[in-house]
Amino acid sequence: MQSIACYQEIIAQHFNSISIDKQPFNLYEPIRYILSLGGKRMRPVLTLMGAEIFNCDASKALSAATAVEVFHNFSLVHDDIMDNAPLRRGNETVHEKWNINTGILSGDAMLILAYQYFEVYEPHIFRDLAKLFSKTALEVCEGQQYDVDFETRTDVTIPEYLKMIEYKTAVLVGAALKMGAIVAETTPENANLIYDFGLNLGIAFQLQDDYLDAFGDPLTFGKQVGGDIIENKKTYLYLKALEFATPEVGKQLQHLFSIQPTENTDKIALVKSIFNETGASTATQEAIKSYTLKAFGVLDQMQIETDKKKVLQKFGETLMSRNV
Amino acid sequence: MQSIACYQEIIAQHFNSISIDKQPFNLYEPIRYILSLGGKRMRPVLTLMGAEIFNCDASKALSAATAVEVFHNFSLVHDDIMDNAPLRRGNETVHEKWNINTGILSGDAMLILAYQYFEVYEPHIFRDLAKLFSKTALEVCEGQQYDVDFETRTDVTIPEYLKMIEYKTAVLVGAALKMGAIVAETTPENANLIYDFGLNLGIAFQLQDDYLDAFGDPLTFGKQVGGDIIENKKTYLYLKALEFATPEVGKQLQHLFSIQPTENTDKIALVKSIFNETGASTATQEAIKSYTLKAFGVLDQMQIETDKKKVLQKFGETLMSRNV
Repeated sequence: MQSIACYQEIIAQHFNSISIDKQPFNLYEPIRYILSLGGKRMRPVLTLMGAEIFNCDASKALSAATAVEVFHNFSLVHDDIMDNAPLRRGNETVHEKWNINTGILSGDAMLILAYQYFEVYEPHIFRDLAKLFSKTALEVCEGQQYDVDFETRTDVTIPEYLKMIEYKTAVLVGAALKMGAIVAETTPENANLIYDFGLNLGIAFQLQDDYLDAFGDPLTFGKQVGGDIIENKKTYLYLKALEFATPEVGKQLQHLFSIQPTENTDKIALVKSIFNETGASTATQEAIKSYTLKAFGVLDQMQIETDKKKVLQKFGETLMSRNV
Repeated sequence: MQSIACYQEIIAQHFNSISIDKQPFNLYEPIRYILSLGGKRMRPVLTLMGAEIFNCDASKALSAATAVEVFHNFSLVHDDIMDNAPLRRGNETVHEKWNINTGILSGDAMLILAYQYFEVYEPHIFRDLAKLFSKTALEVCEGQQYDVDFETRTDVTIPEYLKMIEYKTAVLVGAALKMGAIVAETTPENANLIYDFGLNLGIAFQLQDDYLDAFGDPLTFGKQVGGDIIENKKTYLYLKALEFATPEVGKQLQHLFSIQPTENTDKIALVKSIFNETGASTATQEAIKSYTLKAFGVLDQMQIETDKKKVLQKFGETLMSRNV
């Protein structure tokens, strides 16, 4: 097993080497562009790790890892259109640099390209990968739709919210790991357990993202702190605060999440104090811890060497250490 | 073998029976909607025929046929966004009835759903179907991009135009037939020949569509006659006319294809007379005939019973008889 940085290096080198040098230029150039922006590439790293955990060389899983990263970027390109986002990884989004039609069509091509990266594997592995991929990709679409639906709903429940982040974010973390396991041809039990590990870690990660969006260090958190509050996003913090708040404070919070002031400093401070005073902040931290521990609990059931488990545990700890 | 109408009935019944009754409603309702609009459903019919030609019951090919039709509708939903089209099959387009984001996301889900319909087949058939599907789907995207590119180019050549319609339309006709052949587990030679039959017939069909758009009978042609001329579309007729025209007439034609008058009657009449006088109309009819005969020529090489060949030939003749 290698370090995360080492896997990232393998992925980066691989993405530099694969040429999407096809015609027509106007279809493939946006694909090259978005893939060149890099990012942490944690999902393909997980696919390589998923293979090595089960004693399969990472190089065998590179093509599946590429599929995962290309799919992730497809979802970013289409989501950015839907969210009207001008920037991605500090650069112009595809629809901003070109136009919406280019974003739609190049995104479509990326979704298809992702499937093609599975074609290097033999039939039964190809089928298992493509099936898991389709199931996951459809869930990601469903998660995105729930997210859109929630924007205009005022009765979103905590279980509904958890399902949304599970679909929109966590299933791909689980699937990325499981694809490595499939390439390694481990037992179905092990493959399902590593999926569950990723799923729970993915939920913990997204809840932490919610938490850090409000309470993170502006110097280390990648995005604008308070962004979710400015956009009136009904995150776990918000839903828990509504659950715990007195009717009066609840009303105040709902009002704050219905306005869009030009100057947000007061609103952010007020909302954060409500998150703290209602106990929503503590509840969110407890949920993060609970999902992280659930992920680590799954590791115990896996039939692999202890040092392999430690690698996954360390990965989980590194990922979650952002909040300490 | 059964009649085309009979295959259409099987497909229609099947689409009535499959339930896309999943949540979230706002993601799946547009999918149900577009699939309920029907259409001629020629592509899935071809998949059923492709199976029965090689002695495989049509019912075995129904799932692959469903994939082909769902993919085709995915491409319509996304193309309609890009073309800003208000109507599809006489009804509102998805992005018009809902909004662009819904069109993007429901379209994405349809592309993934299409792959899932292959999952009923065993691994080696699944792999062959998914590979052909990915190749074809990517070519359809490429064809759409060429079509978009050609709108703003003035130097499009006839070979480029033929490649565009091959990718945008004909490859899916070939692939629909070949998928039936794959399900029937015929020889690779036969599967490739039936693909070539479909490909050539598909090109002939699209060229005929170009021709009928200008010279079709307004009573029987489904779309507005002269629509391509109004929209200044550089079709085969236009490119051939430019090739054959004197410099003077060529200039006149280029001018006519640079204006958008509110009243189009004169423009349409003038353009049509140029198409006729330059010989572009005759050349287009000859090209249609040539690709149709090429398709029928492929049939001769196929190792199947003569009556099976006759079914394909009759299908081709029925499809192309629109112009007589």
